[in-house]
Amino acid sequence: MGPIRKRLIIDMDETIADSLARQLEWFERDGVTTILPRELERPDLHQFLKGEHAELLRSYAHHEDFFRDLPLLDGAQEALERLAGKYDIYIATAAMEFPLSFAPKYEWLRLHFPFISPMRYIFCGDKSVLKADYLIDDTAKHLQGFHGDGLLFTAPHNIHEDRFRRVDSWGEVLALLMPAA
Amino acid sequence: MGPIRKRLIIDMDETIADSLARQLEWFERDGVTTILPRELERPDLHQFLKGEHAELLRSYAHHEDFFRDLPLLDGAQEALERLAGKYDIYIATAAMEFPLSFAPKYEWLRLHFPFISPMRYIFCGDKSVLKADYLIDDTAKHLQGFHGDGLLFTAPHNIHEDRFRRVDSWGEVLALLMPAA
Repeated sequence: MGPIRKRLIIDMDETIADSLARQLEWFERDGVTTILPRELERPDLHQFLKGEHAELLRSYAHHEDFFRDLPLLDGAQEALERLAGKYDIYIATAAMEFPLSFAPKYEWLRLHFPFISPMRYIFCGDKSVLKADYLIDDTAKHLQGFHGDGLLFTAPHNIHEDRFRRVDSWGEVLALLMPAA
Repeated sequence: MGPIRKRLIIDMDETIADSLARQLEWFERDGVTTILPRELERPDLHQFLKGEHAELLRSYAHHEDFFRDLPLLDGAQEALERLAGKYDIYIATAAMEFPLSFAPKYEWLRLHFPFISPMRYIFCGDKSVLKADYLIDDTAKHLQGFHGDGLLFTAPHNIHEDRFRRVDSWGEVLALLMPAA
């Protein structure tokens, strides 16, 4: 018997799923605004989106199609497959805010990460109730309540956050968590 | 500021929701067998159901209607409302085995337990990933992997289980967890 495997919890939106791409696509479709990639890192842009378009943004996430066929973030699939060789991987997503996301999120995970058992999916709200060695998440709030090692996955909305260890890509996660590989 | 509130995780099926009643009702509807209440505690009955009718039983739980309008277990609603005054209550259900149960489970909880925020619902598979002071569950497997105090909620299928502290009713849970009340 080998050593006990460490447990790694990984978030979905903006960590392995490119929900931001969908959001920008729908903003453009609805004629709200066209945001250029280089503008995404401006903090005033997020203030603007949260202020002027908070309602619209929420309505998107309450739409079942929002979570369908989301693109994968670069390297997520390959990285998780490699990590699964060493860690017990769980996927935890704050799906309770958007009940219509349950089915599309489940299907998306089955499709793209067939090597992770659905028994290891966690649809929740408050992630402070989870127990693991690592949590990789783009949302500072979730890392704040977490008791293991939190890794902030870089996303445009969090680039000004400096309380957590940051990882900029799945390549960087692999370098950190699979150093011998 | 008062003392830190303890965290209490509570299971759904056969702990607050009477899924067994539905199961027996459907068995009878399908002409499989009629089980009398006094027969439920016979261990050979559970062997029989798991053996002869395992497929049918699984097909029930994969049917969306199975989880709709489940009766409440006696005293569950009142007990949780009182417990919510002292504990941070989370509801954790192994819903990943039955993806069609997501929506009816969510609606059932909203209807019967409006005082618990959906942010505290957890739809998962393996509950060993949860962190809390207490877990109340009828399934020994879940208590086994849990690191806090596990309470086995008595159900016909578990009466021969003796590894865990047992609670027979919601009244008994209140006596144990709200002793001053």
